[in-house]
Amino acid sequence: MAVLLIFLCFCVDGKRHLFMGRDDVLLDTVSAGQRLEEGLPKLSANPPRYSNATRRVQTSAIRELFALLARPDVMSLAGGFPSAAALDLDGLREATKRATARSPALAFQYGNSEGYLPLRELIVQRARETGIRLDAAQTVITTGSQQALDLVSRVLVDPGDRVLVESPTYLGALQAFRFQGADLISVSTDNEGPDDLEEIIVRQRPKLFYLIPNFSNPTGAVMSVRLRKRILSLAKIHHFHVVEDNAYGELYFNEPPPPSLLALATEEEREWVIHLSSFSKILAPGLRLAWMSAPVELLRHIVVAKQLSDTHASTLAQLTAFHYLNAGSLEPALSRIRHFYRNQALAMRRAIDAELTDTSFRTAWPEGGMFFWARVPGIDTSAMLEHAVGCGVAYVPGEPFYASKPDFTRLRLSFASASVEEIGVGIRRLAQCLHSAHEMSAEHEVTTEPSLRTA
Amino acid sequence: MAVLLIFLCFCVDGKRHLFMGRDDVLLDTVSAGQRLEEGLPKLSANPPRYSNATRRVQTSAIRELFALLARPDVMSLAGGFPSAAALDLDGLREATKRATARSPALAFQYGNSEGYLPLRELIVQRARETGIRLDAAQTVITTGSQQALDLVSRVLVDPGDRVLVESPTYLGALQAFRFQGADLISVSTDNEGPDDLEEIIVRQRPKLFYLIPNFSNPTGAVMSVRLRKRILSLAKIHHFHVVEDNAYGELYFNEPPPPSLLALATEEEREWVIHLSSFSKILAPGLRLAWMSAPVELLRHIVVAKQLSDTHASTLAQLTAFHYLNAGSLEPALSRIRHFYRNQALAMRRAIDAELTDTSFRTAWPEGGMFFWARVPGIDTSAMLEHAVGCGVAYVPGEPFYASKPDFTRLRLSFASASVEEIGVGIRRLAQCLHSAHEMSAEHEVTTEPSLRTA
Repeated sequence: MAVLLIFLCFCVDGKRHLFMGRDDVLLDTVSAGQRLEEGLPKLSANPPRYSNATRRVQTSAIRELFALLARPDVMSLAGGFPSAAALDLDGLREATKRATARSPALAFQYGNSEGYLPLRELIVQRARETGIRLDAAQTVITTGSQQALDLVSRVLVDPGDRVLVESPTYLGALQAFRFQGADLISVSTDNEGPDDLEEIIVRQRPKLFYLIPNFSNPTGAVMSVRLRKRILSLAKIHHFHVVEDNAYGELYFNEPPPPSLLALATEEEREWVIHLSSFSKILAPGLRLAWMSAPVELLRHIVVAKQLSDTHASTLAQLTAFHYLNAGSLEPALSRIRHFYRNQALAMRRAIDAELTDTSFRTAWPEGGMFFWARVPGIDTSAMLEHAVGCGVAYVPGEPFYASKPDFTRLRLSFASASVEEIGVGIRRLAQCLHSAHEMSAEHEVTTEPSLRTA
Repeated sequence: MAVLLIFLCFCVDGKRHLFMGRDDVLLDTVSAGQRLEEGLPKLSANPPRYSNATRRVQTSAIRELFALLARPDVMSLAGGFPSAAALDLDGLREATKRATARSPALAFQYGNSEGYLPLRELIVQRARETGIRLDAAQTVITTGSQQALDLVSRVLVDPGDRVLVESPTYLGALQAFRFQGADLISVSTDNEGPDDLEEIIVRQRPKLFYLIPNFSNPTGAVMSVRLRKRILSLAKIHHFHVVEDNAYGELYFNEPPPPSLLALATEEEREWVIHLSSFSKILAPGLRLAWMSAPVELLRHIVVAKQLSDTHASTLAQLTAFHYLNAGSLEPALSRIRHFYRNQALAMRRAIDAELTDTSFRTAWPEGGMFFWARVPGIDTSAMLEHAVGCGVAYVPGEPFYASKPDFTRLRLSFASASVEEIGVGIRRLAQCLHSAHEMSAEHEVTTEPSLRTA
């Protein structure tokens, strides 16, 4: 009961609460470090121990959530990682075997920072088949697309530089941009985007605009072709880079999404397009492999940054991916994966229809990707998370996906990791959680607000 | 002949020349980028395209050298990568097989940013056997120790912060520190270090002091125990972090090096020690795995930076390393590797004794590691490199290993990658190259200096 009261306090406040813990950790850490120094001889003005970059980022919400996932009694609809059932483990094992049997001296040796050329050539060939003219010299293999984001950020962004982001967007990207000291400007990319998009750009003079045009994380939304073209045209005119993150583009349920910005761009517009694609969602996250294309002179700087960041991506992983693609295993695996996620999404849709119709829960139906992006008016989903975990279900609150002005009523549900049965259980528990939250919230509004506020 | 004259010009100048190409690339790139913008509509003050960090680093010399290595007619004594003959390919293949057979769903899935706990526990257990008290909670697995250096740099260093480095030291570390905008202060760590070390520290107030105490890259030198203790004591008093890079400590020929700084540190001193060890030299570089220990509160920030840098190191690689260590394969492999490199070093020593005694070539004999650090008074080794490549041999000139005031007469020879026969051929070619360089230099000093200077 005490827990529930505390939970209500958080709700009433309508502020951050559970995740406020993150800031506390950082502050505690710094002061603990300073306490250690007490009593020791000191310089008169001891410099601060951590960099400004470090002080700009908080522990990631996703990281905190990984801790919750470890609890066996909690059904997690939070994590955005592929189900083991969606991974072609036999094919991957076979590819690893080939990599270590056929060219072990290559698989376990240093490689170059751009990545294994035969793998990049296969990637380029695949891209060409989807209408993207690309040369291997315009590509680099990164240690996951998180590294691609970080490298782009490091090569282009100085503290105070403006970076446009969708509202909401992938929180790992926000972290990478924040770490570099970017001044993040949120832009809605619903429909045709804001009427005053060009004015925003002229006023803010952004270094780059980060986009997830296909089955976005967290929204599952697909950007219209008109907005894609509008952004490309603005990039060319106003000289900012478009960072197109296509992590989910291949995970469509029925129809492929519209052509990528890289495919749509004119020759001049392409000079401003950075394209990111990941093997994490279509092959295996444990390889930590993604690829990025960029205009050649920019790529040269990215490769230098890549080199001083980690020299190159694991050669063992790269050769495994090469042998997997080279055996022609990816296309049939992708058909299976698409079918698998469509089924998972359908299971979640059915469970929502069955369990959540009499609550305030609202969601759009995604056409691909891994996520439902829902809204529960009147509920602060960040505040509710601890209560939900008490009900045995976890989700990701909307808040951390916003660079500014978070919509606290949003939450992200993943259908990627849990089984169909688990999805059913999770949604049922979420329904129970929402019912009790609404009841408590109503009760509280009428009777207990003042006393709780002063408590 | 024209080539030789040009080469002499460089020598006479006593300046950078071959490697000046690196700056040129960067400048060319920026101006090419700007040219592209001509004729397009522009903002009145278009922001610069690249970050300050990018403009601070040049293409790495090692990167340029990798291009030279691809030439089959050049015998390379340049690269610091392990010989394929030193890798336990069968054992590695077996470990990969176990990783993908026993726990495929783990090997190909996301992991946490700290790294695979059972691997960290084996690492800690091994460290304890060498007298280092360590807990898995104080460790993180990084994507090679280059990433460890980069993370330390990002978490501790702001532009303008002072970083002490040995003179000379690993150029990949210099790149990582420069990228963060560190103000690098070179310190000699021969013998007991400079008499005025404490004064330098009080004056410069460094954030950290980067050290390679065992069989350093490039010098092969081992730091005295007295200097290790002196630096630890100064770190505690003056509050800077000691970054101990132990990439080569296990590659001793006869006797292990003295205890690491982490092992020597008192409880209070340990609060300032960051320890880096790599699997690249003792297991396989292609896994891209290293580990770092740091005080817990600092490590927490490092893990957040690691998360936004690349989420985590390849799980496939981590599980491969785990199964390799868990099978007890590392200790016998290390015995073989030590024996192998001792033989390689002996072969280089014999070749030097046979071929280079009548030149000005001087070198110390390393007791471990991968390198001879030589001196050729009167010769600018940077200037000579192109000539050497013409003679069919490559080395790394001393210059890029210095943060400031390079000793242009130094060069690094690696005995790690080439076979015993190739080492013999390489040293013979180097001797021929030095003979001709001395002859040309002498001839030039007497007769042609003025005309060449004005040419």
